[in-house]
Amino acid sequence: MRTHYCGHLRAEQIGETVSLCGWVDRRRDHGGVIFLDIRDRTGIAQIVSDPERTPDSYDATDKMRNEYVVRITGRVTRRPDESLNPKLPTGEVEVYADKIELLNAVRKPLPFQVSTADTETVREDLRLKYRYLDLRRERMASNLRLRHELIKAIRRFLEDQEGFMEVETPILTRSTPEGARDYLVPSRVNSGEFFALPQSPQLFKQILMVAGCDRYYQIARCFRDEDLRADRQPEFTQLDMEMSFMSQDELIALNEHLVAHIFRTLKGVDIPLPLPRLTYAEAMDRYGTDKPDTRYALELVDVSDVVAGCGFKVFADAVKKGGIVKILPIPGGNAKISNVRIKPGGDVFKEAAEAGAKGLAYIRVRDDGGIDTIGAIKDNLSDEQKQEILTRTGAQPGHLLLFAAADSDTVNKTLDRLRQVMARELELIDPEKLNLLWVVDFPMFEWNADEKRLDPLHHPFTAPHPDDVADLKTARTLSHDLVYNGFEAAGGSMRIYQPELQQEVFDLIGIAPEEAQNKFGFLLEAFEYGTPPHGGIAYGLDRWVMLLSGEESIRDAIAFPKTQQARCLLTNAPNAVDDRQLKELSIKSTAERKEDKEKDNKKSP
Amino acid sequence: MRTHYCGHLRAEQIGETVSLCGWVDRRRDHGGVIFLDIRDRTGIAQIVSDPERTPDSYDATDKMRNEYVVRITGRVTRRPDESLNPKLPTGEVEVYADKIELLNAVRKPLPFQVSTADTETVREDLRLKYRYLDLRRERMASNLRLRHELIKAIRRFLEDQEGFMEVETPILTRSTPEGARDYLVPSRVNSGEFFALPQSPQLFKQILMVAGCDRYYQIARCFRDEDLRADRQPEFTQLDMEMSFMSQDELIALNEHLVAHIFRTLKGVDIPLPLPRLTYAEAMDRYGTDKPDTRYALELVDVSDVVAGCGFKVFADAVKKGGIVKILPIPGGNAKISNVRIKPGGDVFKEAAEAGAKGLAYIRVRDDGGIDTIGAIKDNLSDEQKQEILTRTGAQPGHLLLFAAADSDTVNKTLDRLRQVMARELELIDPEKLNLLWVVDFPMFEWNADEKRLDPLHHPFTAPHPDDVADLKTARTLSHDLVYNGFEAAGGSMRIYQPELQQEVFDLIGIAPEEAQNKFGFLLEAFEYGTPPHGGIAYGLDRWVMLLSGEESIRDAIAFPKTQQARCLLTNAPNAVDDRQLKELSIKSTAERKEDKEKDNKKSP
Repeated sequence: MRTHYCGHLRAEQIGETVSLCGWVDRRRDHGGVIFLDIRDRTGIAQIVSDPERTPDSYDATDKMRNEYVVRITGRVTRRPDESLNPKLPTGEVEVYADKIELLNAVRKPLPFQVSTADTETVREDLRLKYRYLDLRRERMASNLRLRHELIKAIRRFLEDQEGFMEVETPILTRSTPEGARDYLVPSRVNSGEFFALPQSPQLFKQILMVAGCDRYYQIARCFRDEDLRADRQPEFTQLDMEMSFMSQDELIALNEHLVAHIFRTLKGVDIPLPLPRLTYAEAMDRYGTDKPDTRYALELVDVSDVVAGCGFKVFADAVKKGGIVKILPIPGGNAKISNVRIKPGGDVFKEAAEAGAKGLAYIRVRDDGGIDTIGAIKDNLSDEQKQEILTRTGAQPGHLLLFAAADSDTVNKTLDRLRQVMARELELIDPEKLNLLWVVDFPMFEWNADEKRLDPLHHPFTAPHPDDVADLKTARTLSHDLVYNGFEAAGGSMRIYQPELQQEVFDLIGIAPEEAQNKFGFLLEAFEYGTPPHGGIAYGLDRWVMLLSGEESIRDAIAFPKTQQARCLLTNAPNAVDDRQLKELSIKSTAERKEDKEKDNKKSP
Repeated sequence: MRTHYCGHLRAEQIGETVSLCGWVDRRRDHGGVIFLDIRDRTGIAQIVSDPERTPDSYDATDKMRNEYVVRITGRVTRRPDESLNPKLPTGEVEVYADKIELLNAVRKPLPFQVSTADTETVREDLRLKYRYLDLRRERMASNLRLRHELIKAIRRFLEDQEGFMEVETPILTRSTPEGARDYLVPSRVNSGEFFALPQSPQLFKQILMVAGCDRYYQIARCFRDEDLRADRQPEFTQLDMEMSFMSQDELIALNEHLVAHIFRTLKGVDIPLPLPRLTYAEAMDRYGTDKPDTRYALELVDVSDVVAGCGFKVFADAVKKGGIVKILPIPGGNAKISNVRIKPGGDVFKEAAEAGAKGLAYIRVRDDGGIDTIGAIKDNLSDEQKQEILTRTGAQPGHLLLFAAADSDTVNKTLDRLRQVMARELELIDPEKLNLLWVVDFPMFEWNADEKRLDPLHHPFTAPHPDDVADLKTARTLSHDLVYNGFEAAGGSMRIYQPELQQEVFDLIGIAPEEAQNKFGFLLEAFEYGTPPHGGIAYGLDRWVMLLSGEESIRDAIAFPKTQQARCLLTNAPNAVDDRQLKELSIKSTAERKEDKEKDNKKSP
């Protein structure tokens, strides 16, 4: 039907007769001569219809409207000098249309403009409902292309350079221990029983290592029935990898080369390797988070030892109760951040409060070197203590020091949040800068205060650090998270492959043998039959596409995403189904019916 | 941890010290000297432990058992002449082990032998339960490799040579019109509503064409809650493609090049193109099926006109009622197939009866040219009729002619089945032969006698043949199925892209506008906004792997398949879940509980 794609026309085609297919991007009537921009996946070509030179096509052209589907046959000519468009790859040429066929019209008013010439901002719900129009727009079309190129680059590297084999693992599988967020699927032919959709292929990829697969990867769809919150999708795509007979350093090196390959292929950027590594302890200490954005400094400073036992009860009590006191030193913050903003009701205070802080103490360093601070610090800290704080934070004239004092969790959450807010406010983030680093040596367990027990920080198959096996309770793990501009971009670990050690971990987290058997019995049994040392990692690809394309929402990285309410506005899923269908599946809905709900709503005032 | 893979050792490494990791495939004690075959994904390496030359490793080697996981360091040497093994890629060398580390033992008796040296047939349920051991065996490991290579070849061809873009479509989507076999997924956060798992990405790929995606492909997981029968899986993988602005001939040609690429890459075979095409009508006429295996001839012959109005009531009535009488001529069948086998109770009769036939008439041509037949034919057909039958079927001495007389459906089903049975019995199938052909021009509708209405043979979006639009009821479609050795290996069609024509089709199959709106409203609405001409195709990849690997069960083409009872024996899914979990999802199981069922079973005598 066509000889060329629109976006591929170049000066070389001048004189040729070509056929193009696509959508009318714009129609311009220049006093008798009509110009059509025709768009396909590759770009735009300019079509000219001139009542004198191409009378046959003129009438057809005149009837064209935006987004009509057309086929055009005509001769490629050089544009007149004054209409050359160096910004457009096809900007040197235009096509004199001999024949224009209308393949399909638009029969309803467009809900929004699609043209590449249009930069209108469109409401997201409209974009999602008319996703087929939204995906025609250059922004989303290029996001889809980037997604394709990313996955292609990953596959080529893993297959051609590293000998990985892709294996598909089941999507209809067994409800897992973290079952609370499992999507369940009733089985019709095994009534009363349910499949679960996988939150990750974790168990299967470990099984594949036992099976001798050696190097596995999969672009895997995963599912989590999360509570509704920003930037999560009910289904998401991860690059899932697992490999045998490899040390953690080898695994990290391989993944660094993968990452470098991605940036080289997609962005033409060379990443210096090896990437920096931070231990979890160091990351928490310096940045208050295990995924620090180190494109900017703003490092936290612990002053617990300085203020321990001081007269300011908030500080002294925090330390006494086993908590900490830390400072976020902000160069230039004295002039930029007023007291009103730090005090209750202020925006900075609110950010801190969201993270759990009860209040925000501060010290300001004036341009003359003197300090302003709250009364409680002025009165209750000695000059030596104040001086030590200034020294330790490297405070200079113009600095603002923000304090958080509480349990270490709250302190770190608060200052991590403020650190990010301040970096944006002070414009410390260079959007061109690329920040990649590993965080390693996560702790094996965290204390679950509600249930008064140890919980595995990752999952119970994570291998302890070999230096720490003597006391697993406080052990670090052989874990590795990749952080990309402050986002967790990949995460993984080496796995436990010795049944005895695995049992010890289950004992510690209070999983009885029969419970372990019930939950992961098949994996534990597999481990009895000759399991190689192995480890793995998984990358959140939706987030990668978001970061690489510069989008701010993960929905713009996905062809057909769900809303934050976990709905598809295009197909209107999920939806109610026939009772007959449910009966076939041997289930019954216990939800209040929509009509009933609506009735209730009407009743209430 | 290792310097080489086991299977990569060659004479070039002689003299080098290498480290290998893998599983003990076999251990042989040759009077003091112990040989270990070590296996990894790439193959086998022979390790020698000699109490004289490598005393340190000898004790460790002595303790090794099958499937232990080991790491071996040693020097590569040339095997003595008498133990060179030209059948093994590594058969020229062996490794004198300096050091053998046991990385992990096997702690339970193996349920079956894994060694490549072992050819024992293992029960399928054991293989599926211990899939990790089964996948270590050469047969399954090579099936997984082939699957990986197949998908890789497809991707490379479509991406590099044809400009296709992969787009991921949702797995949590809306219950479709063929909803009866949909897997449903209750939504926790939208209680009372359900997602459905896609039976295919059909609607989304058409939406992507409206979105200007131009050439889409996806290796897509699809789901169908089928009644339990052979060779179907609850989840299956298809290569899904859709393309715009392309004629059917162009689409077929592109796919032929894809198929040729697959066979060239995986089998080193050049397929002559273009592939043969049969119309649906011709395929049904000559073979009684729309997926004929034409590696052998055995073509059917229609003799309805010859026997119409004859004295044999079975033949005459069949024709009178609008049915047909067809013959399967079997060269050499006279000697091979006895009357006992054709008569009620015989195995050939049973096959025919399974397909719906009430009886099997026959004519035998003796070696002397005379004929034997049933009384009803002898007495009721004229000599001219008998002669015409012999002429038309090309009957020669030794031929057996089997008759089927009924409605055309039953006749074709019966003779298709007998044709396959006879081809196997007469060993007419050359397993080396490759048989690929297109079947095109399927009818648009089939008559649903139960519901007394027309049903679309494929789906209601299939485009009618342009020559037949005047009367859609009897129209052929622009459809194309690829048949590979008698299996439907791919199927697709050009699509309707004009709303008016689509409406006409819905009217014919009795879908009211509001019903159409409810079922595929979003697609119909999309079609209003500038839809390009488009068409597509989908390949069943599990079946391709099965056929390419020479397996007979689709389960051997899948890493973690379900049984015919739609169960996973490895993880024991599906399973019963906590009532608490169901409550969260606002559903209730109405199935009889297992314990109750068991009680009931015990009660009944």
